[in-house]
Amino acid sequence: MQRIVIVGGVAGGATAAARARRLEEDAEIIIFERGEYISFANCGLPYYIGGVITERDALLVTTEESFSSRYNVDIRSMTEVTDIDREKKEVTVRDVRTGKTSVEGYDRLILSPGAEPFRPAIKGIDLPGVFTLRNIPDTDRIKRYVDAKAPKTALVAGAGFIGLEMAENLVERGVETTVVELTDQIMPPLDVEMAAAVETHVKSKGTTVFTSTSVQGIEATDGAYDVVLQNGKGSETRRYDLVLLATGVRPETSLAKAADLAMSDKGGVRVDASMMTSDPAILATGDAVTTLDYVSGAEVVIPLAGPANRQGRIAADNASGRRSVYKGTLGTSIAKIFDMNAASTGMSEKRLKADNIPYKASWTHSGSHAGYYPGAEMMAIKLLFAPNDGKVLGAQIVGGKGVDKRIDVIATAIKAGMTVFDLQELELAYAPPFSSAKDPVNIAGYVAGNILMGDVEMIDYTETLAADPEKDLILDVRTDEEIEENGTLDHVLHIPVDQIRNRCDEIDKSKRVLVLCAIGLRGYLGYRILKHRGYDVKAVAGGYATLRHMR
Amino acid sequence: MQRIVIVGGVAGGATAAARARRLEEDAEIIIFERGEYISFANCGLPYYIGGVITERDALLVTTEESFSSRYNVDIRSMTEVTDIDREKKEVTVRDVRTGKTSVEGYDRLILSPGAEPFRPAIKGIDLPGVFTLRNIPDTDRIKRYVDAKAPKTALVAGAGFIGLEMAENLVERGVETTVVELTDQIMPPLDVEMAAAVETHVKSKGTTVFTSTSVQGIEATDGAYDVVLQNGKGSETRRYDLVLLATGVRPETSLAKAADLAMSDKGGVRVDASMMTSDPAILATGDAVTTLDYVSGAEVVIPLAGPANRQGRIAADNASGRRSVYKGTLGTSIAKIFDMNAASTGMSEKRLKADNIPYKASWTHSGSHAGYYPGAEMMAIKLLFAPNDGKVLGAQIVGGKGVDKRIDVIATAIKAGMTVFDLQELELAYAPPFSSAKDPVNIAGYVAGNILMGDVEMIDYTETLAADPEKDLILDVRTDEEIEENGTLDHVLHIPVDQIRNRCDEIDKSKRVLVLCAIGLRGYLGYRILKHRGYDVKAVAGGYATLRHMR
Ligand SMILES: Cc1cc2nc3c(=O)[nH]c(=O)nc-3n(C[C@H](O)[C@H](O)[C@H](O)COP(=O)(O)OP(=O)(O)OC[C@H]3O[C@@H](n4cnc5c(N)ncnc54)[C@H](O)[C@@H]3O)c2cc1C
Ligand SMILES: Cc1cc2nc3c(=O)[nH]c(=O)nc-3n(C[C@H](O)[C@H](O)[C@H](O)COP(=O)(O)OP(=O)(O)OC[C@H]3O[C@@H](n4cnc5c(N)ncnc54)[C@H](O)[C@@H]3O)c2cc1C
Ligand SMILES: CC(C)(COP(=O)(O)OP(=O)(O)OC[C@H]1O[C@@H](n2cnc3c(N)ncnc32)[C@H](O)[C@@H]1OP(=O)(O)O)[C@@H](O)C(=O)NCCC(=O)NCCS
Ligand SMILES: CC(C)(COP(=O)(O)OP(=O)(O)OC[C@H]1O[C@@H](n2cnc3c(N)ncnc32)[C@H](O)[C@@H]1OP(=O)(O)O)[C@@H](O)C(=O)NCCC(=O)NCCS
Repeated sequence: MQRIVIVGGVAGGATAAARARRLEEDAEIIIFERGEYISFANCGLPYYIGGVITERDALLVTTEESFSSRYNVDIRSMTEVTDIDREKKEVTVRDVRTGKTSVEGYDRLILSPGAEPFRPAIKGIDLPGVFTLRNIPDTDRIKRYVDAKAPKTALVAGAGFIGLEMAENLVERGVETTVVELTDQIMPPLDVEMAAAVETHVKSKGTTVFTSTSVQGIEATDGAYDVVLQNGKGSETRRYDLVLLATGVRPETSLAKAADLAMSDKGGVRVDASMMTSDPAILATGDAVTTLDYVSGAEVVIPLAGPANRQGRIAADNASGRRSVYKGTLGTSIAKIFDMNAASTGMSEKRLKADNIPYKASWTHSGSHAGYYPGAEMMAIKLLFAPNDGKVLGAQIVGGKGVDKRIDVIATAIKAGMTVFDLQELELAYAPPFSSAKDPVNIAGYVAGNILMGDVEMIDYTETLAADPEKDLILDVRTDEEIEENGTLDHVLHIPVDQIRNRCDEIDKSKRVLVLCAIGLRGYLGYRILKHRGYDVKAVAGGYATLRHMR
Repeated sequence: MQRIVIVGGVAGGATAAARARRLEEDAEIIIFERGEYISFANCGLPYYIGGVITERDALLVTTEESFSSRYNVDIRSMTEVTDIDREKKEVTVRDVRTGKTSVEGYDRLILSPGAEPFRPAIKGIDLPGVFTLRNIPDTDRIKRYVDAKAPKTALVAGAGFIGLEMAENLVERGVETTVVELTDQIMPPLDVEMAAAVETHVKSKGTTVFTSTSVQGIEATDGAYDVVLQNGKGSETRRYDLVLLATGVRPETSLAKAADLAMSDKGGVRVDASMMTSDPAILATGDAVTTLDYVSGAEVVIPLAGPANRQGRIAADNASGRRSVYKGTLGTSIAKIFDMNAASTGMSEKRLKADNIPYKASWTHSGSHAGYYPGAEMMAIKLLFAPNDGKVLGAQIVGGKGVDKRIDVIATAIKAGMTVFDLQELELAYAPPFSSAKDPVNIAGYVAGNILMGDVEMIDYTETLAADPEKDLILDVRTDEEIEENGTLDHVLHIPVDQIRNRCDEIDKSKRVLVLCAIGLRGYLGYRILKHRGYDVKAVAGGYATLRHMR
């Protein structure tokens, strides 16, 4: 009968405990959790603050009592593990309430201590109206503050998904919210032009967004906070009633470091594919560890609940003597941001560039379902793929309904090593309320495939916006009505796509012709028509819908 | 410059024409369509009758005029192709309005004539209030009838997706609707127990359903219809104001047969992977052809729009001298039926049985997204997989939101040749509004994997319902409240799962213990606890949620 000790009782830890019990009815299993609650819904916290989740109890996925009676696990909440003696296979634990310490032996130790919010070293970070959000006590504090003080304005520092979810939920509470972000875009997993669409949406909801801006310091005056914001042009002080720091998380590695477990350069505990640390008796999972990127093989820290849960199960398998492996992570993620959904999986263009991995990209825009059935919403899909064989490397999708479905399909395809040609062939469920006979994923596959086959040469938004009127002719092939409604670029020649065949003589053959339409489809058609007629021509990838946010 | 002639101008035909033009700007492309409209939304027709789609024009995905000006295709609507002279590479065409015939040559001929509704040989089938639904004139006729006569009652014969969609849309129009179905279940792509959940739902909407019942004859009396219905017990006559026959479709193969093209035993035109018929100059696509089942390799006729569209593109590729292949079909399909969605992909249990393919099955029930976030809805997933390596063979999902997403993920997985163990590892997008950290597809993979690993022995609903109280003990491990609310089987012993460890002595060790819970999870937990203690035990697969519709 072995003794399994688990540090941390939430996503990775609780899952590991439950799985271990299912595998070994007679093992002794102990969870140490320094907080008051195990098994809570971290991901639901912003929505409780926003009042979308109305019952606090709903945040407790399972309680200590029910979990221990179901799984016969010894749960010691409010108990922090402060030290690991690897030689003796013992941990020192400290009762958070009394400060008393004791020592507990283990046969296998599973670490799932999570991550801690990054707290920049700036003045005023500990002031009472300045918050970070990680757990239930944080949530209670923020909610109490919002309930009691009814702040009129809030500053959210950090425009990752937690920052933006909090912005949405503060707006939900009637708080005028500003989001500042250090880098030049919101939603870091996305590439800049995809994030720009989200930024436009966030702003349309009355939220202010400052990118390339940092918080330099916070000062309390008259019950509010003067925050010094700095960007390339200088600094200014703005006043807010509440400040939330959502500037990312750092793996919680103090225990592991003190125990001299191997660490990765990326800052997480290094584990092998069986989630084993450099000590074979110790496994680690979740936000605290470094895993391998499934596509690039590089070490990455991916603080997401899906991987934490899966790793918890795998760690338990291995702790119980089964061989179970984690094959790496895609970093598939999604966030609802007001009425928009933004999702990504695999590598982004900026990461591919940074890692010097060759790639090509396609941009498409499709409806969530057949246009003739009411309620369809548009989504933009960016697909990244290998230039040689078309292997899918990553995808980003931004839009309304159905974003989650398409990112999941592509995540599955990447996991399977599929190419863009395989995406063309996917046989997805079609009826008018759900999709189109050619699903948005099929369409993305077609366009990417056409690029690889040389059936179309695309030019991306950056190059299009940098077009030189001396050498380039932007041919806008949309209808009069579309151009009137949405605008167009400067110096365009306008010939609707259906008239190109008859009006070719109006198009200057000495120039490079960039065919611009709404979403890229008619640009492709224009390309085919003009290419056949001997023009030097490119289609503007993703059309006006892709570049309009980047103007 | 080659001449491509296409027969049929809708899903397969119009797609082939558009693709052919994109590939060959200077080919001559002609579409012959015997109806008035090309490119219409077959799949939207029921919703226009129901008033969900309000504009008739919305059914025309593209018009003859806009399609011909965009794609420079010669469209001859109201023109039927009546004969193919393969030797001369000519077709005879007949102007439907004037009856005049003429002859047109082709280099490549693409047949996409679709299917025709099956019209059983019964009396009264041609009466004015008796309809089938395939195209816009059919739709106009039905809609006019409903608008003018305001029928109070309707009979829909055939409970496939078109029948059920029509039932829903008639109910939407205030018509009291009865559905009769020849076989013993509605929704033929599903297995009987999955269909039973849909049937329960359809009935809960006030629709009457008679399975194992056939229409024997129809007679018009006093402006309504007396319909003779027959089942195993005898026949009876019921009166309806409208009758819709939705008893399946048959490939439209008259032209192909007359031209002596090879036919498959399944009734469709036989094509190879490049959609080429037995005549290399003639390709065929869509509802009219037989393709290979992707999983079993057997010949199948799959009358669905996704395959028709994809095949149309592939046929055009090959007609234009590219090599492009269709790798077979999964038959992925979905239907919205009132507030429920029912979807399937790959092989069903009944088809696996019929084809003598070894398989195992799992049943799970999961929420569409995290339970703590408002609005989650349940779905039932049946997964079919190979008993040796766990390769996924098929899946069926029935429930509320998110059914389409999970069927698409599994369809992608099947296409990739994934196993149930691969499903466990899928990294799908999680945030509370979209899924759970362990997505329903992961859960299905876990349960199926556990079955294969021998970690649980499941017993299915049929065997459970056939349990012998002499030898079997059904142990219901739900709470008192659950049993009170939902009921249970006869002769159960009731011990909530959390008490099993302490109350084992109440469980008769001489019997086979069948652990029953709500959805299967606690049955599995009970199994693990009792197995360890030496019981002969099985977990009831999918729990009460799976078997309750089969009682
Ligand atoms: C506000 C918010 C929203 C989120 N939304 C999403 C989302 O939508 N989707 C998504 O995929 N992910 C989301 N996440 C991330 C997700 O919650 C984490 O990835 C996941 O919880 C990590 O699991 P873990 O087991 O590694 O750590 P945790 O779940 O954080 O659990 C670690 C536990 O260990 C305890 N602990 C740490 N050190 C010790 C010690 N020495 N002794 C005892 N106990 C210790 C901590 O108190 C903590 O309770 C969100 C996170 C937050 C904070
Ligand atoms: C009411 C209804 C709802 C549907 N819902 C869905 C759904 O939700 N999901 C789904 O996947 N599928 C659905 N389908 C099926 C889908 O519409 C078909 O699978 C698809 O249209 C088949 O494409 P096709 O090109 O083979 O045939 P069609 O689209 O039917 O086109 C064939 C055309 O060829 C013409 N034609 C035939 N013979 C000749 C000839 N000799 N000369 C000239 N013209 C000829 C016909 O007039 C017809 O217009 C539905 C069908 C119907 C009727
Ligand atoms: C309307 C119809 C003729 C369109 O056929 P189509 O042009 O092949 O299909 P789409 O409009 O989806 O366009 C797909 C093409 O545009 C390209 N495309 C789509 N979006 C693009 C974008 N953003 N950028 C560049 N190219 C794009 C695709 O690559 C594809 O071209 P390819 O086949 O040469 O690769 C055909 O679908 C039809 O008749 N539909 C109605 C009938 C029907 O399907 N009924 C059953 C369902 S109700
Ligand atoms: C609540 C918690 C302890 C549950 O862990 P768990 O028991 O591993 O997970 P689930 O409740 O999803 O159950 C999954 C198990 O039940 C089994 N199961 C699920 N449905 C089943 C069914 N219908 N029939 C049979 N077995 C079933 C699965 O096979 C799996 O068991 P296995 O791992 O032995 O294969 C854990 O998920 C947790 O603490 N969550 C909250 C924290 C968190 O994740 N936060 C981040 C997201 S907000």
